[in-house]
Amino acid sequence: MKKLILDLDTGIDDTLAISYALGSPEVELIGIAGTYGNVQLAQGLRNDLAITDLLGHPEIKAYPGLTHASTKDSFSVQKVSAFIHGENGIGDVTIPDSKRSPETEPAVDFIIDAVKTYGKDLTYVPTGPMTNIAAALRKAPEIAQQIGRIVLMGGALTVCGNVSPWSEANISQDPDAANELFRSGAPVTMIGLDVTLQTLLTYRQTGRWRELGTTAGAFLADMTDFYIKAYETTAPKLGGCGLHDPLAVGVAVDPTLVTTLPMNMKVDVEGPTRGRTIGDNDRLNDPVKTMQVAVGVDVDRFLHEFMTRITALAAAAQ
Amino acid sequence: MKKLILDLDTGIDDTLAISYALGSPEVELIGIAGTYGNVQLAQGLRNDLAITDLLGHPEIKAYPGLTHASTKDSFSVQKVSAFIHGENGIGDVTIPDSKRSPETEPAVDFIIDAVKTYGKDLTYVPTGPMTNIAAALRKAPEIAQQIGRIVLMGGALTVCGNVSPWSEANISQDPDAANELFRSGAPVTMIGLDVTLQTLLTYRQTGRWRELGTTAGAFLADMTDFYIKAYETTAPKLGGCGLHDPLAVGVAVDPTLVTTLPMNMKVDVEGPTRGRTIGDNDRLNDPVKTMQVAVGVDVDRFLHEFMTRITALAAAAQ
Repeated sequence: MKKLILDLDTGIDDTLAISYALGSPEVELIGIAGTYGNVQLAQGLRNDLAITDLLGHPEIKAYPGLTHASTKDSFSVQKVSAFIHGENGIGDVTIPDSKRSPETEPAVDFIIDAVKTYGKDLTYVPTGPMTNIAAALRKAPEIAQQIGRIVLMGGALTVCGNVSPWSEANISQDPDAANELFRSGAPVTMIGLDVTLQTLLTYRQTGRWRELGTTAGAFLADMTDFYIKAYETTAPKLGGCGLHDPLAVGVAVDPTLVTTLPMNMKVDVEGPTRGRTIGDNDRLNDPVKTMQVAVGVDVDRFLHEFMTRITALAAAAQ
Repeated sequence: MKKLILDLDTGIDDTLAISYALGSPEVELIGIAGTYGNVQLAQGLRNDLAITDLLGHPEIKAYPGLTHASTKDSFSVQKVSAFIHGENGIGDVTIPDSKRSPETEPAVDFIIDAVKTYGKDLTYVPTGPMTNIAAALRKAPEIAQQIGRIVLMGGALTVCGNVSPWSEANISQDPDAANELFRSGAPVTMIGLDVTLQTLLTYRQTGRWRELGTTAGAFLADMTDFYIKAYETTAPKLGGCGLHDPLAVGVAVDPTLVTTLPMNMKVDVEGPTRGRTIGDNDRLNDPVKTMQVAVGVDVDRFLHEFMTRITALAAAAQ
């Protein structure tokens, strides 16, 4: 069975990504690597353990990743992140702390070990900054060729960014790390705003989770409604909230959900467009393309899979 | 038969675009609209008439377009343009002036009249700034729905620009005009650097024109060699010169030469990325997509068509 690692700054749509993974019998979630972004690392790890408990999967371990970009000394949560995800990252909904603690093994080592153990059977899904995977590639460059696939949520190739007209939030947190990943030769599928802004969730769908009558269903509904409400302010023309992180998990489970362009990509790390994801002109005519960039998505099929899997998980949980 | 208008700042690859059009029995070139860019308008019109004479097609008329962007008072040829195309636009190769003069009818009126006359049978191919077509759309907005198709050379969606990391030369001359066209609803196919930097010509191919022993063959070979030589300086990693403008004509003749993404596009007209061509997030989820953006090209087939058509034309000319 395909092994999955999620690398999360948990986060509302990260929580939905966990739910999608746990609701997918085709994959085994072997652990969560923690990162910073929507929340601080510690808050994200706290959320990972509390959420997996609530969803009936206390066997899922969480590994502490790096706390900030390698080019910076620290990380502060941006005000817009707190507005979108809540101060606690899960829409300011209160759920019990887990009695478990994060693992002592660093996420970077966990990722490298997992590649050594599972090789091509491993799919790694980062939905925050690329800081952990860049550090892993620096420590063990050979994993670029050994890993099965990396399916990341981040970037924007054919559309505008969401933190600036040219930069998407995850990439902008650590453009240098993303650039290292993009140039590493690793098999990367980029699930960017190009497709995630097409997969929208509305109150109509979250209402189905609330109707389940379970604690998990109520939690997911209340948390996601906070997110949809934030989107009414940040993206009033969109008509719902973007299912960014869950779509990356969806594609990790079933790559046929998206159509992709085979490309060699880079991230602008200098100049005014720092943080932009774009084709690398120097490698445009290389016959080998190391990345697949999603530019189309089967919206109806993904939303159906998303609702079916997460609703079944929430129905079976407490 | 499909009617074709070329809108040119003639220019070396514009000359190759004229040659491709005249060498294509599937289309009838009904006139050339002149614009500024690689050269001043007057020089471009002079070239259009001299080139069509030399290629054995003195029936092709040239119409004077606008001399500069609507947001500017004048236009100066950039040094890099003179470096790439020569001071006279055709690689500093000397060919006789035509005895003909440009028409008195302005290009903007010629374009509008042609849409009224030929409607869906008309394909308009601008390979310079979009100043003329934007003016035509302002004067007669209804032509956006009446024209057959606009196949433009310009822009860069998935790769970096050539006058800045985010802007391509034709679009950067008049970003506002291009933005008007992109938002007009007209059926536009964008042939940008995404594909034109994949279709490369080398000295091996121009040698075949020289071997023809005709004046036209020698002219095309000498002119294009100037262009290839300039590319050795401006894009040393590319390994040839990009066939920008001829590829737009190639696609106007045979759309199956490229694969495209259906999109709604805009041009950044403000901020640091002025001149960038990018998807319009506000219209991302509109079911109707007004543009097709080329992201893949059948390189071998295009180069075969390019060489076959232009070589036959140059062999039959004086």
